[in-house]
Amino acid sequence: MNILLTAGPTYEPMDPVRFIGNRSTGKMGYALADAFAAAGHTVTLVSGPAALPVPTHPAIQTVRVETAAQMYAAAAEAAPTAQIWVFAAAVADYRPAEVAPEKIKKAGDTLTLTLVKNVDIAATLGETKRAEQFSVGFALETNNEQAHALEKLRRKNFDVVVLNSLRDAGAGFGHDTNKVTLLTADGVVTTSDLLPKSAVAQDIVQFVLARYAQYA
Amino acid sequence: MNILLTAGPTYEPMDPVRFIGNRSTGKMGYALADAFAAAGHTVTLVSGPAALPVPTHPAIQTVRVETAAQMYAAAAEAAPTAQIWVFAAAVADYRPAEVAPEKIKKAGDTLTLTLVKNVDIAATLGETKRAEQFSVGFALETNNEQAHALEKLRRKNFDVVVLNSLRDAGAGFGHDTNKVTLLTADGVVTTSDLLPKSAVAQDIVQFVLARYAQYA
Repeated sequence: MNILLTAGPTYEPMDPVRFIGNRSTGKMGYALADAFAAAGHTVTLVSGPAALPVPTHPAIQTVRVETAAQMYAAAAEAAPTAQIWVFAAAVADYRPAEVAPEKIKKAGDTLTLTLVKNVDIAATLGETKRAEQFSVGFALETNNEQAHALEKLRRKNFDVVVLNSLRDAGAGFGHDTNKVTLLTADGVVTTSDLLPKSAVAQDIVQFVLARYAQYA
Repeated sequence: MNILLTAGPTYEPMDPVRFIGNRSTGKMGYALADAFAAAGHTVTLVSGPAALPVPTHPAIQTVRVETAAQMYAAAAEAAPTAQIWVFAAAVADYRPAEVAPEKIKKAGDTLTLTLVKNVDIAATLGETKRAEQFSVGFALETNNEQAHALEKLRRKNFDVVVLNSLRDAGAGFGHDTNKVTLLTADGVVTTSDLLPKSAVAQDIVQFVLARYAQYA
């Protein structure tokens, strides 16, 4: 099968040197790309600016992007021919309304930055999802975790949502280990142990492939 | 001698996952630390979140920080006992006025972010500089380069300012090579060739040590 996988952060420029970023390292997404490729599938990995080496598995094609708009364009190109979509990137919800062409000089004591909403990649592609396609999203929540994750699943037309919690020590952004909870629209809830991201990725891939075989 | 050297970007958090960053990699600052150590000096390297390995030279003590406020605290501690200060970090001029304790949820079509000025590390320490101390700053300008750099030298009480230009292909943020112009208060101007950052660092260190011997 063809897998579309987004990974890493996006950087939204304010000027030639400054940007709004986030703490995603891309490790979980890159581990998922490796796990899908190891399971015999072809992966289009659309990656934001992660400080990770480009995967070497011949079944993984990596497309490097920087902003949410660029990530959307690359994902939209790959989505129609992919059976499974996995949105593991931490896409910026907002970007600066204007990108200054020259470095912003320090002036007043305060600076007001107006941000505008980025395209919601998963939700927008979710509207085009065909019956035989399957969409997997990630949620990173700091409060009301499962309720927020299920709301996200419905809003973005996901079949499975992978909930990362910032509350578990050793899990999530910047760590080499992770602990996730998998939720489905029909109420299945599975929580992984705290394991290396490569092992968690294999568990997620097995769960997704089994659900895909059953429902898509 | 003791050298205080700041390097890398700073990250200014908006919430537990988002931050305002900049494109400094820390390569130039780390190369300067190596060059000062190789010349027989002791370096306190105060580094923002750079994706570089911690220097292994035993004469380099690395202090890792994230925000401008943390960088100021670490630099202020090392400054009184250092003969030469080198401010190679790309410190954020502004930080979000408030850091949200939970991840900011996507809500309206626009988001207004109020930023407040960070402490100016070089200028604030510059006010405490004694006659026998020597301060070196960096300037990254996209227009009126030498005029802006000299204005910065005066305002921050630098003895030498190193001007990076974004206009030179292959120089500055993210590149392994650099081309800089060295300016002094008394009008000396020297421009390096486009060279690996390690070679440019050696040139800067030789220039600074010679000027220090002459004037501090």
